[in-house]
Amino acid sequence: MKVGILGAGQLARMIALAGYPIGLEFIFLDPSEDSCANRLGEHLHGAYNDPRLLAQLAERADVVTYEFENVPAEVAEFLSARTQVHPAPKALAVAQDRLIEKAFFRSIDIPTAPYAPVNSLADLEAAIIPIGLPAILKSCTMGYDGKGQSLIRSTDDLAAAWDALAGAPAVLEGFVPFNREVSIIAARNVSGEVVFYPLSENVHRGGILRVATSREGDPLQAKAEAYISRLMEALEYVGVLALELFDVDGDLIANEFAPRVHNSGHWTTEGAETSQFENHLRAILNLPLGATSAVNKTAMINFIGGLPKDEALLAIPNAHLHLYDKAPRKGRKVAHATVRANTSAELEALISQVSTLADQVDDS
Amino acid sequence: MKVGILGAGQLARMIALAGYPIGLEFIFLDPSEDSCANRLGEHLHGAYNDPRLLAQLAERADVVTYEFENVPAEVAEFLSARTQVHPAPKALAVAQDRLIEKAFFRSIDIPTAPYAPVNSLADLEAAIIPIGLPAILKSCTMGYDGKGQSLIRSTDDLAAAWDALAGAPAVLEGFVPFNREVSIIAARNVSGEVVFYPLSENVHRGGILRVATSREGDPLQAKAEAYISRLMEALEYVGVLALELFDVDGDLIANEFAPRVHNSGHWTTEGAETSQFENHLRAILNLPLGATSAVNKTAMINFIGGLPKDEALLAIPNAHLHLYDKAPRKGRKVAHATVRANTSAELEALISQVSTLADQVDDS
Repeated sequence: MKVGILGAGQLARMIALAGYPIGLEFIFLDPSEDSCANRLGEHLHGAYNDPRLLAQLAERADVVTYEFENVPAEVAEFLSARTQVHPAPKALAVAQDRLIEKAFFRSIDIPTAPYAPVNSLADLEAAIIPIGLPAILKSCTMGYDGKGQSLIRSTDDLAAAWDALAGAPAVLEGFVPFNREVSIIAARNVSGEVVFYPLSENVHRGGILRVATSREGDPLQAKAEAYISRLMEALEYVGVLALELFDVDGDLIANEFAPRVHNSGHWTTEGAETSQFENHLRAILNLPLGATSAVNKTAMINFIGGLPKDEALLAIPNAHLHLYDKAPRKGRKVAHATVRANTSAELEALISQVSTLADQVDDS
Repeated sequence: MKVGILGAGQLARMIALAGYPIGLEFIFLDPSEDSCANRLGEHLHGAYNDPRLLAQLAERADVVTYEFENVPAEVAEFLSARTQVHPAPKALAVAQDRLIEKAFFRSIDIPTAPYAPVNSLADLEAAIIPIGLPAILKSCTMGYDGKGQSLIRSTDDLAAAWDALAGAPAVLEGFVPFNREVSIIAARNVSGEVVFYPLSENVHRGGILRVATSREGDPLQAKAEAYISRLMEALEYVGVLALELFDVDGDLIANEFAPRVHNSGHWTTEGAETSQFENHLRAILNLPLGATSAVNKTAMINFIGGLPKDEALLAIPNAHLHLYDKAPRKGRKVAHATVRANTSAELEALISQVSTLADQVDDS
């Protein structure tokens, strides 16, 4: 079986590495001549919306998936008309627009922060009255890693926040005074079988994920599973789905979802019985899903902008390096490491050791 | 860094899959146009002793290793003169000839079965007097998976056993009445750092490994570590080394060693903190070696000659499939699965489930 992937970045790379052992081959469509997945399958080099390349991808792959959610709707439809595409275009359409996404959460009784659409400075000035301050102004589309977002603390910030959007449609979100950020990752195959990973507890800095820690047995696991189940059913979802949530005194508030394998699930490679990457493949090929139970205690630490020396990292016991084969660039995720331990104290010590190395090279 | 591998079979494939996450690239030299590692790096297609291809391999790879021990001595020397080659030619020379190997074991006080060289039927008739019966006649070179071996139960078997060798130099080995077969796998890097994996307990049938089970805390671990340490030091060994041993009432008798990653260590992918494949790479690149502690209880089951349906295997909880991308053929190893469990009872149940599937397709 050959799996086609739109995009050949680090997520595609890790999907391919997980797919070879179960006998899969890969073909990628990506504009870059020197992508992260470059050595792990065939490549079609060109624009994501090039109909000639898309037709080739559809013809040569048994099933097509993608590593990012900003796939243009017409591309997803073009492919869907020609081959199996998972997740389906509907999940993309919802995930691509924060306003639609929030309305969708609400329509299936998943709580969100208070929000209001903003299409002008006047809208923004009006919106802060019901939403309150502080609040966050976010562009409806194309935001990731904190890009396209402004924190508004006082009415003095309004004009600058609006200007920063350069006229893009936006949404004002009330600031959620969360205790912690968590995410749940689940997989659903074509037959509707569903598995859930233990919650990830996530630490962001500057809008970028820094550390994700597996939390098997978390008291909010059942609630998170209920929400993501509802989301997957409503979207008729196939593949791995990630739902980011705020824990507010034991209540969960949905932030956003990602219709793909997710950075906060990278610990599953070493820390779960079956990785999110393998389960994404099993799901889209309608194979039985693999067990998701935790394997010891695990955390993942991102390397942003630069890399420590391999020697320094590999000398840390139980550290596992995952390089993306990407040239370092300011603010760019270039690698992550996972650490695995038998006790929480050991795990914390390992996170601290690896984070120190990460901070030394972090330029973000 | 680019690693060159002589051979592009399943061992090279698994080495490459372990190497990508730590940032390595691969180039293989293999006669086959459609090898197991075909999609995982550059290929030089041709004979292992083609000087033009060997020169290319040496030039393009930062370090060269191999996935089989029957590398001709002149090939290893040719490469050694041009680039770094690990393990060094000496280990190959010893491993390639059973007589030299046994003499080497004895020279460093590692016990072996009683043995005698056999170069004629008269030699064989003479050898059974001190060695006794039953005994096993083995060709000195090129034997693997029970090939080139004859069990001699009575003097009636002598002529047929000798004829089967077609004149090849041989060794008669006394039959060792072992309680079980075990192996120890260790890695030693260029700087001399050494790590040992927990013992594998191995079940063979028809001379082919069927099941290998990790045995952390085995009472014979220390003795096995002492033997393999001595072997690695005597060979000035760099890379992963496997030593097969018979357990005879708590004494360990060396059977043979393999200067490479080994089938009995395939469980380390899921069952050890760092796999034998990654540690082989770390060793030859002189990186710090990864922790080798067991991750839960694990076993590996080989698929010989044929494959079960993916669906049947993947439906077994905690089963991990490793396909080699090889056409099924009688007696050929085409895949293995590992199973991982928290208790020995669970592990035994999983081994039994997977073995049933393996036996259904096994034609050996």
